[in-house]
Amino acid sequence: MTIETLSTNRSHGGTQGVYKHASAATGTDMSFAVFVPDHAPGAKLPILWYLSGLTCTHANVMEKGEYRAACAEHGIIFVAPDTSPRGPDSNGDEVPDDPDGAWDFGLGAGFYVDATTQPWAKHYRMRSYIEDELPSLLLRHFASADLTRQAITGHSMGGHGALTIGLRGLGRFRSVSAFSPIVAPSRCPWGEKALTGYLGDDREDWQAYDACALLDQGLRVPDLLVDQGEADAFLAEQLKTELLVEACERAGQKAEIRLQPGYDHSYYFISTFLAEHVAWHAERLKA
Amino acid sequence: MTIETLSTNRSHGGTQGVYKHASAATGTDMSFAVFVPDHAPGAKLPILWYLSGLTCTHANVMEKGEYRAACAEHGIIFVAPDTSPRGPDSNGDEVPDDPDGAWDFGLGAGFYVDATTQPWAKHYRMRSYIEDELPSLLLRHFASADLTRQAITGHSMGGHGALTIGLRGLGRFRSVSAFSPIVAPSRCPWGEKALTGYLGDDREDWQAYDACALLDQGLRVPDLLVDQGEADAFLAEQLKTELLVEACERAGQKAEIRLQPGYDHSYYFISTFLAEHVAWHAERLKA
Repeated sequence: MTIETLSTNRSHGGTQGVYKHASAATGTDMSFAVFVPDHAPGAKLPILWYLSGLTCTHANVMEKGEYRAACAEHGIIFVAPDTSPRGPDSNGDEVPDDPDGAWDFGLGAGFYVDATTQPWAKHYRMRSYIEDELPSLLLRHFASADLTRQAITGHSMGGHGALTIGLRGLGRFRSVSAFSPIVAPSRCPWGEKALTGYLGDDREDWQAYDACALLDQGLRVPDLLVDQGEADAFLAEQLKTELLVEACERAGQKAEIRLQPGYDHSYYFISTFLAEHVAWHAERLKA
Repeated sequence: MTIETLSTNRSHGGTQGVYKHASAATGTDMSFAVFVPDHAPGAKLPILWYLSGLTCTHANVMEKGEYRAACAEHGIIFVAPDTSPRGPDSNGDEVPDDPDGAWDFGLGAGFYVDATTQPWAKHYRMRSYIEDELPSLLLRHFASADLTRQAITGHSMGGHGALTIGLRGLGRFRSVSAFSPIVAPSRCPWGEKALTGYLGDDREDWQAYDACALLDQGLRVPDLLVDQGEADAFLAEQLKTELLVEACERAGQKAEIRLQPGYDHSYYFISTFLAEHVAWHAERLKA
């Protein structure tokens, strides 16, 4: 369990690094980004996970997210994983991709599931990667990372990831937030394609990957913040924020779900509110 | 003098737009980015120009610069032009590029000069473009732009642009700042290559494009702020910040020139301090 440092840059009073390691979960090399604010020797800093959306790597939020100033101010480590396995696996075989080369399935579109169907099951194990392998790696290689204080956020497909991993985390995360999340993948075209592809036709098997279904099953998170752009072109057909509002009401889940007028699905939107999410998580991580 | 809107995105309580127009100065289409904070109807907002470095377009700072929150807070319009002419000109002929395809001359490397040698003189007229054409375009198409209150900044080659255009501006700019500027292009490999290529061998002709030379000639700006990363790989050979320190001392130019330990030449550095520069310019633009 070694990691290779691909780059480090000093930024906003901390270090933005990019790292690579051979992942047991996916059977491939995986890259991820970590921002560590300057801190006193021996200090332990809480962790905020950021799961990215369709087509992204760790680099999109790292370059466009505007989170470092807030993370430095609040003393929070920011971890941004990739969105799928990529490249040749440890046997030199290429990771399978959508047969039509679509951007909403396969590479860059792991949907944070452990796939059970072929040919996906061997590599597309982003749930295990995010839930188990990467936290262990952080614990071993980042001395300042306090794994007892974690929060999670994400965008779009990564918002879906943050909500479902957060709900299934059973207390692992002190707070969960999301930008423009796919709140009910069982009930939208992106999610139906992905869950059918990775898990098969039995919709019962999809429930563990559907935030609204998990809420209906009784899972909860300590606190939830969601921002959704009202001018988001994917809102009506794919994201369906109103289903999350209703599920939280049914569940009695504490939640603030905000519609932001004029904002779209892009990083121009995310970067506007990500610092506010960092501060919101910081309050809960330090409570 | 019409412009085409290529994109607009709501961000940080304002509008980030990208525009294209047929430039008379360069004989090509030119793209540029403008961020306009929300404002009261009829309000006039001061302008901060940002000139980008080698290889960049308007997009680098727009995506990675982290300036919008500060511009919205201070009510400042942020204008980011391209760094050279590109593509076919109005006759359908391609703009010439470095014969060896180098990244430090030709496309993406206009050095903010009006070239006088062939084949560059026809299109490489970034000085006229920035000093004359683009301000006129702003005046006509951006009702909120207050051309009586302007400031300028830039990075690397764009820092050189900000310093020289600022010094030659003779009062047009209330404040000038720069990140990692090429302070004396007559005395570094990047600058010697570019100025020889665009202007010819007579070093007298280079003086108008050398900030240290302009200071020695008696030009001044009302106030100057420079940030330079100490870990910048280009510092010793190309940027030579110490020459600017000495020239400001000789000239009695009011200046704050800061070395930032650990920071390199990248947008991880720029984004760390750009909001602070915006605030510094805002103080002077609103004085």
